Amino acid sequence: MSHTHRFFSDVVTADMSYVELSGEEAHHALRVARVRPGDGVSVFDGKGLEIIGECDRIDKRSVYIRAVRTTHHAPPPVRVTVAVGGLHRDKAQETVVRRAAEMGAWRVCFWHADHSQRPIKPTERWRKTAIEACKQCGRVYLPEVDTAPSLEAFLKQHNGPCIIGLLTKDAAAGAPTISMADNVALLIGPEGDFSEQERNAALNAGAQPVSLGSYTYRSEVAAALLMTIVACAIGDLGPGVALDMPRK
Amino acid sequence: MSHTHRFFSDVVTADMSYVELSGEEAHHALRVARVRPGDGVSVFDGKGLEIIGECDRIDKRSVYIRAVRTTHHAPPPVRVTVAVGGLHRDKAQETVVRRAAEMGAWRVCFWHADHSQRPIKPTERWRKTAIEACKQCGRVYLPEVDTAPSLEAFLKQHNGPCIIGLLTKDAAAGAPTISMADNVALLIGPEGDFSEQERNAALNAGAQPVSLGSYTYRSEVAAALLMTIVACAIGDLGPGVALDMPRK
Repeated sequence: MSHTHRFFSDVVTADMSYVELSGEEAHHALRVARVRPGDGVSVFDGKGLEIIGECDRIDKRSVYIRAVRTTHHAPPPVRVTVAVGGLHRDKAQETVVRRAAEMGAWRVCFWHADHSQRPIKPTERWRKTAIEACKQCGRVYLPEVDTAPSLEAFLKQHNGPCIIGLLTKDAAAGAPTISMADNVALLIGPEGDFSEQERNAALNAGAQPVSLGSYTYRSEVAAALLMTIVACAIGDLGPGVALDMPRK
Repeated sequence: MSHTHRFFSDVVTADMSYVELSGEEAHHALRVARVRPGDGVSVFDGKGLEIIGECDRIDKRSVYIRAVRTTHHAPPPVRVTVAVGGLHRDKAQETVVRRAAEMGAWRVCFWHADHSQRPIKPTERWRKTAIEACKQCGRVYLPEVDTAPSLEAFLKQHNGPCIIGLLTKDAAAGAPTISMADNVALLIGPEGDFSEQERNAALNAGAQPVSLGSYTYRSEVAAALLMTIVACAIGDLGPGVALDMPRK
C-alpha cells in the first residue's frame, strides 16, 4: 500500500462523501506530493475531523477525493497553551510554532515582554507553519497562534494552571506536583528572560515553577524542553523510561 | 556587573594566567561581541576546563585575557552519544549538532543508513555549530561529531547501553528500566526511519526501545525528544515535575 498523503481543509464536514481540495493545498498536492488517482489521501480540518479516502480524479487546479471513512479524534486530555515572550527573529517564532504543532499544543501565544525590543507582528507564516507541521507529523488538531499585549494580559485571559520554566536556581528545590485541569499554560521567557516584574506576576497568579536546568537556553529551546517535559508527564510520548543510574 | 562573554580555545591549559585569543574567536570577540578591556570573559577548552578572567587589552587581531580563576568542571555522570541515521539536509544535521551540544551530549555520530540516499559528508560546520551552541548556553564540554559507515559499525564501536527511539506501537508496552553505565547511546532513525534490518541489529545488540509517541517526527525532532527524555531521567534538567491528571 502506498503512503497516505495528508492535506488540510477548514471547510470539510463529517457528512461529506466527496471532497474537493483547491487553492494552496491542491497546488501542494498536485505539484509537490504529486497525488494521482488511486492514491491514499487524508484530509483533516484542524479540529479533530479526519476524512480518509482515495484520490478519485485530478484536474489542473483541484484534487477530488472519495471519502472512505471519517474519524473524529478526541481532543487531547490536556489542552496545552505555549505562551512565549516576544521573539524578535521570525525563524525563532516559526520554530516555536512548528514544534508546538508537532507536540500537539492547543494554542501558541506570543506575549509582548518587558524585554521585547519591538512589537510582535502576527504573520500568515504562523498558521502555514502549523499546518505544514500537522501534515508532516500526523496531528489532527491545529494550534491557534495569537498574541497578547503583555504577560499580565495573557494571565488574565488564561483560566487554568500555569507552569513557568525557570533555571534550576530559580525554581523549587524538589519536583513540584501540579494539579492539572483540562488545560495548562506553559510560560517561557523571551530573549533576555522574564523581567523581575513578569516573573513575580506569574508566580503571584499561581504559576508553578519547573526547572529547565542550569544552562542558558534559547527561548525556542526552553519552549521545546518544557513542552517535552509536560508531554512526558501527560503520557503523550508513551510510557517513558526509568534509568537505573550507576553508583559512583 | 556586565555579562560574561564566553569563548572557546583548544590550546588553553589550567596553568595559564594570561590567555591570548586569536583567529576566529578573536574576530568574534572583537567584531560581534565587541569585547573591551575590563569586560568579564571566560574561555573553555571543550573538555571541562574553564578560565574565568577579564579582558586586559585588545589589538586588531587578538584579545588578551588575565585569568582570575580556573575551574575544571566534572564530566557529566552519563556520557550521551546521539547516533542519528544519515540526514540529507545540512540544516537538519546542524540542528541535531546544536541541540546535542545544548543538551550536553558527549558525541554525535551520523551513521550511513539503509534509507540514506547519499553518503554523509563531514563538514567543518558541525564543529563550529557545536562551539557556538556551547558558547551560547554555557556548556563546557564540546561534543565530538563523527560518522559511521552503518548502524552495525556504530554498534560495534559503542561499548555501553543503547536506547532506540521508536513509535509507541513498536516499543515495549510499559516504561522500561534501563541499567545505565557511565555512557549511553541514543539511536534515532534517519528520514524514512530504520530499515527492518537496522532495527533488528539494534535490538539484537541489546538496544532498549523507548517510545516517542504515535506521530511521525522529523529525525531531528525525534533526536531532541529522546535527548530530553534521557536528560530528564538523568536529572540534567533538574528535579522534574509530576502532574496530577484530571479524572474524566
